[in-house]
Amino acid sequence: MFGNVPHPPASPCCDHLGFLQKNNNLDDKGRIVSSFQERSSKNQRSCDNSARDGPFRRSETDFSNLFARDLLPAKNGEEQTMQFLFEIVDILTTCWRAWRASTWSCRTSPINKLSKSHVFVSHVKVTPGSSTSSPLAWTSSAWPGSGSRPPPTPTCEFTYEIAPVFVLMEQLTLKKMREIVGWPEGEGDGIFSPGGAISNMYSVMIARYKYFPEVKTKGMAAAPRLVLFTSEHSHYSIKKASAALGFGTENLILLKTDERGRVIPADLEAKVIDAKQKGYVPMFVNATGGSTVYGAFDPINEIADICEKYNMWLHVDGAWGGGLLMSRKHRHKLNGIERANSVTWNPHKMMGVPLQCSAILVRERGVLQGCNSMCAGYLFQPDKQYDISYDTGDKAIQCGRHVDIFKFWLMWKAKGTVGFEQHIDKCLDLSAYLYNKIKTREGYQMVFEGEPQHTNVCFWYLPLSLRSLPDGQERRERLHKVAPKIKALMMECGTTMVGYQPQGTKVNFFRMVISNPAATRSDIDFLIDEIERLGYDL
Amino acid sequence: MFGNVPHPPASPCCDHLGFLQKNNNLDDKGRIVSSFQERSSKNQRSCDNSARDGPFRRSETDFSNLFARDLLPAKNGEEQTMQFLFEIVDILTTCWRAWRASTWSCRTSPINKLSKSHVFVSHVKVTPGSSTSSPLAWTSSAWPGSGSRPPPTPTCEFTYEIAPVFVLMEQLTLKKMREIVGWPEGEGDGIFSPGGAISNMYSVMIARYKYFPEVKTKGMAAAPRLVLFTSEHSHYSIKKASAALGFGTENLILLKTDERGRVIPADLEAKVIDAKQKGYVPMFVNATGGSTVYGAFDPINEIADICEKYNMWLHVDGAWGGGLLMSRKHRHKLNGIERANSVTWNPHKMMGVPLQCSAILVRERGVLQGCNSMCAGYLFQPDKQYDISYDTGDKAIQCGRHVDIFKFWLMWKAKGTVGFEQHIDKCLDLSAYLYNKIKTREGYQMVFEGEPQHTNVCFWYLPLSLRSLPDGQERRERLHKVAPKIKALMMECGTTMVGYQPQGTKVNFFRMVISNPAATRSDIDFLIDEIERLGYDL
Repeated sequence: MFGNVPHPPASPCCDHLGFLQKNNNLDDKGRIVSSFQERSSKNQRSCDNSARDGPFRRSETDFSNLFARDLLPAKNGEEQTMQFLFEIVDILTTCWRAWRASTWSCRTSPINKLSKSHVFVSHVKVTPGSSTSSPLAWTSSAWPGSGSRPPPTPTCEFTYEIAPVFVLMEQLTLKKMREIVGWPEGEGDGIFSPGGAISNMYSVMIARYKYFPEVKTKGMAAAPRLVLFTSEHSHYSIKKASAALGFGTENLILLKTDERGRVIPADLEAKVIDAKQKGYVPMFVNATGGSTVYGAFDPINEIADICEKYNMWLHVDGAWGGGLLMSRKHRHKLNGIERANSVTWNPHKMMGVPLQCSAILVRERGVLQGCNSMCAGYLFQPDKQYDISYDTGDKAIQCGRHVDIFKFWLMWKAKGTVGFEQHIDKCLDLSAYLYNKIKTREGYQMVFEGEPQHTNVCFWYLPLSLRSLPDGQERRERLHKVAPKIKALMMECGTTMVGYQPQGTKVNFFRMVISNPAATRSDIDFLIDEIERLGYDL
Repeated sequence: MFGNVPHPPASPCCDHLGFLQKNNNLDDKGRIVSSFQERSSKNQRSCDNSARDGPFRRSETDFSNLFARDLLPAKNGEEQTMQFLFEIVDILTTCWRAWRASTWSCRTSPINKLSKSHVFVSHVKVTPGSSTSSPLAWTSSAWPGSGSRPPPTPTCEFTYEIAPVFVLMEQLTLKKMREIVGWPEGEGDGIFSPGGAISNMYSVMIARYKYFPEVKTKGMAAAPRLVLFTSEHSHYSIKKASAALGFGTENLILLKTDERGRVIPADLEAKVIDAKQKGYVPMFVNATGGSTVYGAFDPINEIADICEKYNMWLHVDGAWGGGLLMSRKHRHKLNGIERANSVTWNPHKMMGVPLQCSAILVRERGVLQGCNSMCAGYLFQPDKQYDISYDTGDKAIQCGRHVDIFKFWLMWKAKGTVGFEQHIDKCLDLSAYLYNKIKTREGYQMVFEGEPQHTNVCFWYLPLSLRSLPDGQERRERLHKVAPKIKALMMECGTTMVGYQPQGTKVNFFRMVISNPAATRSDIDFLIDEIERLGYDL
């Protein structure tokens, strides 16, 4: 109503409708303050009405044209950021008010047929989903950390009654992810875990349960000597899982890769045959969809052929590369993933969801539950008043789980699948830009030939003094020290930071990884200049 | 400066000092808006100065007398909540501005000797600790999910360079917790994990590594048949760990408890002797400090005697009861915990820290690292420019970890140890109030005799129709259905929710758990009335 009127007085005279239209200026916040006062006094007069009418009376702020680049820390992003934050404050206080009103009214007339904690759902467009936030909500399921939070704060996920809407969000999102993986109708199972390492650990546990369910009760002594396979370039979490789950790291067999870091399928088959000849039982193969250092995608279809032939579980660790499934242009790199038995996919990596948000997806329904369920009587009562198949907690190796789904669900709603696709395409475009810029540039040397499959760009920078040195021990030793030195200088200056590591016989090299779509070509240019500025004379 | 002047005009004429003193009214927010504009224009004139002077020019808001009960959802908490939220908005934008100014200035004069991402640390009194939030910060350590967050957003914890201050906060807090446990000088090790179940899993892994380190490389086949012991009342995560880690649930031996749910030490010793006679190797004992259902504390000292005698690892699962260590009045219930080899303690339970926040503490230094380290070259480079003992990531079974420490550290700073003590004492007082109120009340029957050790109050409610029934099959069957029915009615009404479960031979009973210090005696009274209102006629 006061959408674009400049400089209204900061007195309690105006409604709050439209106060945060994108083009308003900072002065509008004076009106917000007023509107809070206004509504505050209204609420004291008619508490119930304000709670019920709120959602319908309130106009929506249009953030549809507002992007991260418009917000702080972007230059000139202050106004929009302030608007955005004030909107959040508004939503929070409106929620609380509605919730308080509904709680109070329920205490005086407790015949209502619906839980009042859902009253403001339609208003904030998200569901607090937690009747456990009320001081009157005594924990229903042994999770005592719930009481002190206001409604819109994420609660804890393990039973439907504790986090009804988050449970449904998780189910919906996991199904959608399985559809994108390519499993018919999105069938299967899955759960969000505290990170890719734990998701990968799940995959090994589930595979073991599928082939040797008696290990659950009798321990590893009940199984023959099981061996697992993974690329020498794979993430170290597979090794951690082998150790933790009682396989032993020596029974994790590392597979050779080609020059680009992709598993050589023939090496897998040879090692499977060798293991069988030794009397071991090949059980599990991890194919990496986007390796940590090179960003390499193992050839899933060829690996799947071997897994089928030898009856092994195929897991795809797409923690880093799974996001490419969202891109029509790049998802071919994961071709064959639909043949996997399980998939790790971390939206908190390539898709920009804040840590932690990692999913383990399982093609066959039932094994995740079978593997982990212990049927704790205090949590999972069969005589509950709702469909207890929504009580997902017993699938997890955890008990209460942090609500990781909400931010992801919200981002997906906000950006859409197309938004994620653009995000990913843009990052890959930027890494191609970097690659093309340095592949023939004086002083740079690529670690492997050809355009990177993912956004990982791996390169050495050679200070002038090294460029004329012949390849050999001295050059290698000196080059090994260059990246650490440049990185240290970067950290001292605070301008930027690029990681480095050795890999196999290759001495320390830089590895640029782009997952932030706020990065620009000018940032890339700056980085290249900065490396040269700091490293040229070393 | 304008601390208590009422109704200042919302024009850019006032400084922002003192604008959020506790007694200011809503109109003061008009001044906040103005001060943002004021500072905004100043910053555009002299970017560097604003970044450097900010911390010194700004006065601190005094929140020392502000408590949760003063904030929403409390009645009349709106004004303070608004002040609090606006203060947060102010801190955020000030940070961003300082950060932007420092980044920009560094790009033009990059000779600064300190990372500018630390500029605003002293200002907000917390450390964003993340140079990875800059679009210019290319991930240094293969963690690509960092770019898109503004500085004060928790980043990812595994190396010092990625989250320097969070790593230090974690070390400091873990040391403090170990001191409170009672280990000399707070020596030892530990890590925050995604929950009590994972912390308990760590304890079993570490114990196995201590006694049979070769299992890490060779698998469970390298060990004899190992057995673990835990109370029949213990949390089911011990069972999940036994299954996951390859011991098998049959090799987890359940210990008998007394009527109050506490382990009977003689039963432990008898079962250890029995296991040894069968040729098994007793390796690990879990003592529960605050059981899930009864809130029982196992007699740690007596269990520790047996563990020492038979050379077994003693773990104390204080996920739920560990918080009582903060209370001089109640910590005696955990006497002997200082003799444990490892302790699980979840600040996200009794201490009210938002989920997730769980610590696994280990008395001996080195075993946590030894158990889990895989020395991934891409993360943990020995040639870094700082003391790499701060790179805690390789201790974890995870790779990147969610920053769980920050909220806990902040709460501890805000409430103090004494604040946590009051919180805990109050919750225990309230449960004692409930217990005393219902122990002799018509229609109520306690599940076990005597005052509960923790805040768990377990009871049956008998509808009138059951009170005259003699004890027997019919009464048991009917009573079994009462708690589910009352809970369902509560959920339909939405007034409150209390959990129930059976335990052993005991039919469904209510279990009230109080961890929210915002609860009052009047809430307890309401609950009792509500149970009677809904259940009397069943």
